Amino acid sequence: MDTFDPVPIFRYQEMEQKEENDLNLKAMNAEELREQAHKMVDFIADYYKTIESFPVLSQVQPGYLGKLLPDSAPTCPESLQHVLNDVQEKILPGVTHWQSPNYFAYFPSNSSIAGFLGEMLSAGLNIVGFSWITSPAATELEAIVLDWLAKALLLSHDFFSTGQGGGVIQGTASEAVLVVLVAARDKILRTVGRTALPKLVTYASDQTHSSLQKACQIGGLDPELCRLLKTDSSTNFALSPDVLSEAISDDIASGLIPFFLCANVGTTSSTAVDPLPALAKVTRTNNIWFHVDAAYAGSACICPEYRHFIDGVEEADSFNMNAHKWFLTNFDCSLLWVKERSALIQSLSTNPEYLKNKASEGNMVIDYKDWQIPLGRRFRSLKLWMVLRLYGLEGLQAHIRSHIAMAAYFEELVVQDKRFKVVAPRTFSLVCFRLLPPPNSKDNGNKLNHDLIDLVNSTGSVFITHTVLSGEFVLRFAVGAPLTEVRHVKAAWQILQEKATALLQIYH
Amino acid sequence: MDTFDPVPIFRYQEMEQKEENDLNLKAMNAEELREQAHKMVDFIADYYKTIESFPVLSQVQPGYLGKLLPDSAPTCPESLQHVLNDVQEKILPGVTHWQSPNYFAYFPSNSSIAGFLGEMLSAGLNIVGFSWITSPAATELEAIVLDWLAKALLLSHDFFSTGQGGGVIQGTASEAVLVVLVAARDKILRTVGRTALPKLVTYASDQTHSSLQKACQIGGLDPELCRLLKTDSSTNFALSPDVLSEAISDDIASGLIPFFLCANVGTTSSTAVDPLPALAKVTRTNNIWFHVDAAYAGSACICPEYRHFIDGVEEADSFNMNAHKWFLTNFDCSLLWVKERSALIQSLSTNPEYLKNKASEGNMVIDYKDWQIPLGRRFRSLKLWMVLRLYGLEGLQAHIRSHIAMAAYFEELVVQDKRFKVVAPRTFSLVCFRLLPPPNSKDNGNKLNHDLIDLVNSTGSVFITHTVLSGEFVLRFAVGAPLTEVRHVKAAWQILQEKATALLQIYH
Repeated sequence: MDTFDPVPIFRYQEMEQKEENDLNLKAMNAEELREQAHKMVDFIADYYKTIESFPVLSQVQPGYLGKLLPDSAPTCPESLQHVLNDVQEKILPGVTHWQSPNYFAYFPSNSSIAGFLGEMLSAGLNIVGFSWITSPAATELEAIVLDWLAKALLLSHDFFSTGQGGGVIQGTASEAVLVVLVAARDKILRTVGRTALPKLVTYASDQTHSSLQKACQIGGLDPELCRLLKTDSSTNFALSPDVLSEAISDDIASGLIPFFLCANVGTTSSTAVDPLPALAKVTRTNNIWFHVDAAYAGSACICPEYRHFIDGVEEADSFNMNAHKWFLTNFDCSLLWVKERSALIQSLSTNPEYLKNKASEGNMVIDYKDWQIPLGRRFRSLKLWMVLRLYGLEGLQAHIRSHIAMAAYFEELVVQDKRFKVVAPRTFSLVCFRLLPPPNSKDNGNKLNHDLIDLVNSTGSVFITHTVLSGEFVLRFAVGAPLTEVRHVKAAWQILQEKATALLQIYH
Repeated sequence: MDTFDPVPIFRYQEMEQKEENDLNLKAMNAEELREQAHKMVDFIADYYKTIESFPVLSQVQPGYLGKLLPDSAPTCPESLQHVLNDVQEKILPGVTHWQSPNYFAYFPSNSSIAGFLGEMLSAGLNIVGFSWITSPAATELEAIVLDWLAKALLLSHDFFSTGQGGGVIQGTASEAVLVVLVAARDKILRTVGRTALPKLVTYASDQTHSSLQKACQIGGLDPELCRLLKTDSSTNFALSPDVLSEAISDDIASGLIPFFLCANVGTTSSTAVDPLPALAKVTRTNNIWFHVDAAYAGSACICPEYRHFIDGVEEADSFNMNAHKWFLTNFDCSLLWVKERSALIQSLSTNPEYLKNKASEGNMVIDYKDWQIPLGRRFRSLKLWMVLRLYGLEGLQAHIRSHIAMAAYFEELVVQDKRFKVVAPRTFSLVCFRLLPPPNSKDNGNKLNHDLIDLVNSTGSVFITHTVLSGEFVLRFAVGAPLTEVRHVKAAWQILQEKATALLQIYH
C-alpha cells in the first residue's frame, strides 16, 4: 500500500476555535436545496412535456454508456447543470420510457403527480423507519392507510391492523410472497419439526409469476417440490381445484407435506383469475397457507363492478397487490395483508440490544422491521396516502375504468381485423392477441408474431411485450400508463396493422 | 355481496367519439406536476430551514395518529395544501428527525442535496429496471458507478464488472448479506448435495449485525448453526482468528459443514474491526465464503488514511457498504460487490417467457434482477452518481473527515470529564461511553446510564442510542448528520453533563 498521511489528529483546543464554518461542507443547506430542487422540478416537468419525442423502448446498444462516461469518479465537484446536460444527452437515450403514453409493455408502473410528490417528501425527510420509535408517524400512517385500503377493497376484518392481522408495504410482490412463504414454512415446521423441511410442497398454477419459484429457492425449499400445475385454455389458464386436490393427495401419499398455495388474480401472461372460493376449500381441508397474488389486478377491485374477482379472499391467509403497478403510486409500493401477523413476526423478528426501546419492549407498537426482509425501510406510506387523498377513491376508480375501457376498445379493434385473433379473454386492461399465419404457412405463427413485435418496437413509437400461451407466441397489449389516451391506443393499433401488412406480404 | 352495476361496456363507435378528453384523468400532466412540485420543494426547504425547532426524537405516544386521521380513505380528491397542512400538524410531530444536526443515534442516514435531487429524478422517470432492456441506462450506470467506487476504494479488479465480478445496489445490508448467503449456500450444496442443508454452519462474531441471523432464518439454515463467536474488550470486540479456527475444527469434527463467514469492518455496537487478513487465511483453508460487512465504515475507506481498515478485502468473496449511511446518498442504497457474479445468478435467476428478450438471451448484458431478491428495481444509481459528481471524491472525503474530527472532539470532551468513561476505542465517528456509577453504588451503572439516556432524549434537544458491551449498558454518540456542526456536538455534551449532574445528585 502507498504511504498515506497519518490520521489527522484534531485537538480539543483547535476544535474550539474552528467552530462550525470550517467543518460545514454544505452537504445540506435549506436555501441551496431550494434553488437546485426547483431546477430539478423544471427538468422533470419538461421531461413529461416532451416524453412523446423519445423512442418508448430505448434503442441503444449494450455497452453504450461506458463509451460516454469517464472511467473514474470525479475528484472535484461538478455543477448540477453539467449533470443535467449529461442526463439529457447520455442517460435519456438509454431510458425505456415507462411513463410514455405509448408504453403498453409488461404491466404498467404508474407514476402520478401525487405519487411523485409523496416520493419527494419521503426523500426529503429521509427517515429510516425500522422500529416505531424511529418515526412513529411512518409506522402509524402505514397501518392506517393499509386499513383504509383494506376497507376500500372490502377485505374481511381479519386483515385489519385492529385485529390479529394487518397490512404492510413491501418493496415488490416478490418480497411479499417470500415473507409469507417463510412464515408458512416456519409455522408448519413448528408442528412437524425442522427435519421435515425437504418434504414441504408449494403449489401454484404454471401461470404463476416466477417470483414464487425464486422465493422457494431463497427459502431453502426443494425447487423440485414447487409444483406449477398445468393450466390451459379450457379454464382460461386458471388453476383447477380438482388438479390441485389430486396433486395434494399424490404428494401426501408419497409422504410429502403440502403447506403453501399461491393463487392468482390476474396472472402476468394473460390476467387469468384462479377460482379463489373453490381453492380455499382445498387449502382448508389440507391445512395449507393460502396466499392470493393480485399484484396487478388487485387495484381494479376498488371498483364495485370488479370486486367479485377477489371473492373468496376472506378465506386467504395473505393477500398482495402492487400499488406501484396500477394505482398511481410510484414504484416501489407493494401492499401485503396478513391475517396472522404473529406468523410473520415469528419468522422475521430480531431483537438486538442496540435497537431496544421502551415502546417496542412494551409491545405497544408495530415494528415493521419484523414484517419484512430488510431492517431499514423508507417512509413509503406517504406517497400512498397522498395518492388516496389527492385523487380520492372515485378518482382512482375512474382511472382504472378508463384504462379498462381503452383496453376493451383495443380488443374490438383487433376483433374487427380478421387477420388477427384475440387469444385469451380480456378481463382487465390487458389484451392478448396474435397475427394469424397465412394459410399453408410453415410457421405456426410464432415466428411471424416474433417478427411483428420486433418490427413494431423498433419503430420507437410504441412498446409492447409478449408471452407464450399453450405454446403460442402471443402479443400483450397492456393499457396503464397515466398519460395514455384513446388516440395513443389508436395510433399503436395503426402501427401494428401497418407492420402486419408489410410482414404478410413478405410471408406470402 | 351487494348488487353492483354491470361491467360497463364501451362500444367501438362510442370510443371513437369520446376521444381523449373524457378519459384523461390528469393523473399526470407536465404543467400541473411543475406547479405542485415547486410547492413541495418549498415545503421541504422550509423543513430543513426549521429542522432544529422539532424535538429530534418524536415525543408522541403510541396510537397518536389514529386519533388525528379519519378511518376511511376520502371519496373525493383533496387539495395539496390541505395535505401539506396535515403533514405539518399531524405527521411531523410523529417524525424522528434523522436529518437534524442534533441526531446522534444508531448510525447516521445521510440525506444530501445531491442525493435528494437524484431521488427526485429517479421518481420522475419511474422506470422499473429489472432487465437491461427495461432501461439500459439504469443497468449500465449502476455497473459504471459501482466500478468508479470500487476504484476509489482500491478494491481488487476481481470486484469490477469488467471481470467475473461486479457491483450491484441492494436496498439494505440485510438484503446484501441474504443474497450472498444464499449464493454461498447453493454453491456448497452443488458440491455436497442438497441433503446437506441442515449441516451448513455460518460464522461471525457476536458483534455482527442481527441481519445475518435473520438471513440464516430466511434461507432455511438451521438457526442453531449460526455461530456468533464470543468477543470481548481484549480484542476491542473484534473476532479472533483463533476462535474462528477452533470453532470450525470442532464443527468439522462433528460432521458439520462450515460454509460462510461474515466479517465486520465497523460493528454496529462499537465500530469494531475484524482482522480481515488473518480471517481470510482461515476461510481459504476451509473453503468458506468470506463476506465483509462494512455497512457503516466502508464509506470512510475512500480516505487514504482509513483505507487500511479494509486491508484483506482482496481475499473476500463479497463486500458491502451502505452509501445511504455515511456517503450522502439518500436511503436506500446499499452497495454490494462480488467476485463471482455467476454464483449470485445461479441462485437468483429466473427466466420466464414474458421477460425474454434478445439482449438477455444473447448474454450481452447484465440483468440485475438475477443479482437480488425482488424482480423490480428503482433507478438508484442516479442518486449515487449525482452524489459523486456534485461533491466529487474530495468533497466526500472532507465530509467523512469532518464527522470523524467532530467525534474525536466529543471523545476528548468525555475524557476531560472524569465522571465519564470512554468504553471502547473510537475508530470512526462513533464514541461509546458511559457515566460511571458513584462509588459504593448498588447499581453497576446500567440503571444510571439507562436513566441518563431517557432524560437526555426526552428533552427533544438531542437523540442518542445505546448498546451493551460485555454486560455494560453503554451510550453511543454517532456523528454523521450532514447539518451537524461543532456547536451541536458541544450543545449535546452540555445536555449530557447537565443531566448527569442532576442524576448523580439523586443517586447520592
